[in-house]
Amino acid sequence: MDNIGKTAALITLANEEERSQLISTARSFNYQVCTGKVGTMDPGKIISAMMTAAKRENIWDGVSFRQEHALYDAMKEALSGICRGQIALHEIYLSVGLSFTIVCGQMPTHKSEGKWVAVCLYGTIGAPIKGFEHEAIGLGINHI
Amino acid sequence: MDNIGKTAALITLANEEERSQLISTARSFNYQVCTGKVGTMDPGKIISAMMTAAKRENIWDGVSFRQEHALYDAMKEALSGICRGQIALHEIYLSVGLSFTIVCGQMPTHKSEGKWVAVCLYGTIGAPIKGFEHEAIGLGINHI
Amino acid sequence: MDNIGKTAALITLANEEERSQLISTARSFNYQVCTGKVGTMDPGKIISAMMTAAKRENIWDGVSFRQEHALYDAMKEALSGICRGQIALHEIYLSVGLSFTIVCGQMPTHKSEGKWVAVCLYGTIGAPIKGFEHEAIGLGINHI
Amino acid sequence: MDNIGKTAALITLANEEERSQLISTARSFNYQVCTGKVGTMDPGKIISAMMTAAKRENIWDGVSFRQEHALYDAMKEALSGICRGQIALHEIYLSVGLSFTIVCGQMPTHKSEGKWVAVCLYGTIGAPIKGFEHEAIGLGINHI
Amino acid sequence: MDNIGKTAALITLANEEERSQLISTARSFNYQVCTGKVGTMDPGKIISAMMTAAKRENIWDGVSFRQEHALYDAMKEALSGICRGQIALHEIYLSVGLSFTIVCGQMPTHKSEGKWVAVCLYGTIGAPIKGFEHEAIGLGINHI
Amino acid sequence: MDNIGKTAALITLANEEERSQLISTARSFNYQVCTGKVGTMDPGKIISAMMTAAKRENIWDGVSFRQEHALYDAMKEALSGICRGQIALHEIYLSVGLSFTIVCGQMPTHKSEGKWVAVCLYGTIGAPIKGFEHEAIGLGINHI
Repeated sequence: MDNIGKTAALITLANEEERSQLISTARSFNYQVCTGKVGTMDPGKIISAMMTAAKRENIWDGVSFRQEHALYDAMKEALSGICRGQIALHEIYLSVGLSFTIVCGQMPTHKSEGKWVAVCLYGTIGAPIKGFEHEAIGLGINHI
Repeated sequence: MDNIGKTAALITLANEEERSQLISTARSFNYQVCTGKVGTMDPGKIISAMMTAAKRENIWDGVSFRQEHALYDAMKEALSGICRGQIALHEIYLSVGLSFTIVCGQMPTHKSEGKWVAVCLYGTIGAPIKGFEHEAIGLGINHI
Repeated sequence: MDNIGKTAALITLANEEERSQLISTARSFNYQVCTGKVGTMDPGKIISAMMTAAKRENIWDGVSFRQEHALYDAMKEALSGICRGQIALHEIYLSVGLSFTIVCGQMPTHKSEGKWVAVCLYGTIGAPIKGFEHEAIGLGINHI
Repeated sequence: MDNIGKTAALITLANEEERSQLISTARSFNYQVCTGKVGTMDPGKIISAMMTAAKRENIWDGVSFRQEHALYDAMKEALSGICRGQIALHEIYLSVGLSFTIVCGQMPTHKSEGKWVAVCLYGTIGAPIKGFEHEAIGLGINHI
Repeated sequence: MDNIGKTAALITLANEEERSQLISTARSFNYQVCTGKVGTMDPGKIISAMMTAAKRENIWDGVSFRQEHALYDAMKEALSGICRGQIALHEIYLSVGLSFTIVCGQMPTHKSEGKWVAVCLYGTIGAPIKGFEHEAIGLGINHI
Repeated sequence: MDNIGKTAALITLANEEERSQLISTARSFNYQVCTGKVGTMDPGKIISAMMTAAKRENIWDGVSFRQEHALYDAMKEALSGICRGQIALHEIYLSVGLSFTIVCGQMPTHKSEGKWVAVCLYGTIGAPIKGFEHEAIGLGINHI
């Protein structure tokens, strides 16, 4: 049983066919999982797309500020990895095409520490012109 | 054939047994690969450990400034993902235990664009006390 | 007689009724004081709202670049405290509702060092949805 | 009954005599409160001084990673306000003399959202030579 | 024969009449040179204006991702010098009026290390009101 | 008569022989000028070397906090240009060899705005191994 961060990263990196299998395995370990895609030049839209997905999958109940706060900070940390430092896209002439995975559950390394959330982003970043982009990854983890 | 960033990430996330298999596959695609581990509170030591590994595996020939410059920037970007923004460890009371992978070769998505390098770091970050840490990941990519 | 930073912070944190009393006391110590409120997702609007208030209260004469430069840097430092690092709001899906106070005068700890300015911001920051926000504070100080 | 951030800020800004009164009032609202002082050129020492104080007052039980993680992030955010952006002291020839307050409890604005923690730092920052310093403040808030 | 960074800086700092002479000298050393001007509150526009100029002068062939990636990173580094840290303009109520120079060629200090590029920006930064601005400079260097 | 930033930059970029001539010209325009060199992996040492030089040349009288504060902020901004973002050297395995110039006086573009200071740093940055470095420049400007 992989920890939540590795689980989120492997699902995000997976091809379509592998992804469903990895998600099923993760759920069998009582992890909540949601995935999605977003392409944009606005980092705020990445956060709001992930919040919508988290709500749809009931990782966020849509009401709890506590859960929203935990998710928000994990998402912002994942964005720091994508942007490799300062969070900015159109401001510095960049565009992204990203897959994301949110995994929520107990960390096998910290069984008695309640639920945690891992947010992973993986895809491409580059100038807003097809072909001028390379891969990027980001991972944020928080207690929820 | 996976792109260099995904290849570097999957090798870094792998267990010992899977790792050798993934490295062999990557090398069969003409990727150069080196891996290693580093535990420290000093980000500079992470960079110098990776440079030493890159030189050992001949990804860096130890003489070319051009190669060193390309590797350095990719390593710094990977560190930004680990630190999720500002690069700092002991300064803000943090310690890391990380595995790293460096993959060097042609990007399958950009066959005519020469060699590129991907640096991936994965492991744990937290207070310098056993048990107070969670996972982190970082990926940097550059032309070399 | 409190220093300019503490004076600015206590006025900003005060309830309406306490605020007038604290401002009167500050003015009796020859401090210039102005206060205001701003709610936005654009950090630039916070700076321009504070500049307008500073001009109205004659802390900035509206002509001097020297004064404007001193105020600007203090305002940007206060914004760093609100954003806790990188200055960004809508870019990372955040909104603020803030009170601000600008206090200008001699520092009692540095009587011979001419006039200084303190800019304090206090209020709430969070997702642009009512209820998903918590408190934040920022203070910037500069010679003017 | 003030919110946790304002409570932490007012206690940190208070004179010795006012402080005990403000702490008593805060405790009567079921807030846990601890205070302390730290002077240093090393931001990591500020975090470790606050962790020690939090443990002494049982805001951190010394065992829970979940609590430690919540406190750590709030402390780092408070340090961002003191440093007004990048967290660094001796690296950029700065020294601080700070009081701190940690307040833990339910937010009156979010009664059903469980316990939160507010960390406030206030004092002086400047060159490591007596007299070359001015005030700074920082506040971090997190769910715990 | 000056190095590429000094060459780019001296051309950018020069008056109109001196500039043509400095460019001719640089070209006689086999440096490729392009210059331009840009005034904006949007850092992304500075990057896209420089890319357009680089393409016009054939420093970027308009097709190579490798060249574009090298130029982009050098441009972003030059912008960090203009903004003195975080890259942001309208977000923090700032406007710039800048000249830029891109110099491409072998570094005389590193003859065997292939081609490098230097990007220099120099001009004024300040509030978006005439007269409230001072000088700023930035230089980025990368292997290409 | 060049503005203070351009004056500081041209002196810093100059060869030894040109430098004395440029300094004489600058002084004939009533600019105060001091220059120096510093090689280090510690950014704090760059600031303290420049403060010592400023005091020796009486740009800082060694007593005024106001002057020290103005110089400090200009120095930190110049360091941001050298480090191209986050200020860090040994932390991220970097070393610098820099010349610096401090110019103090009235800005010809803002005659009625009192004295300002420009701090320019120029030299090389890279791994702490001879030959693995390229040029960098930084400029900070403040009212004094």
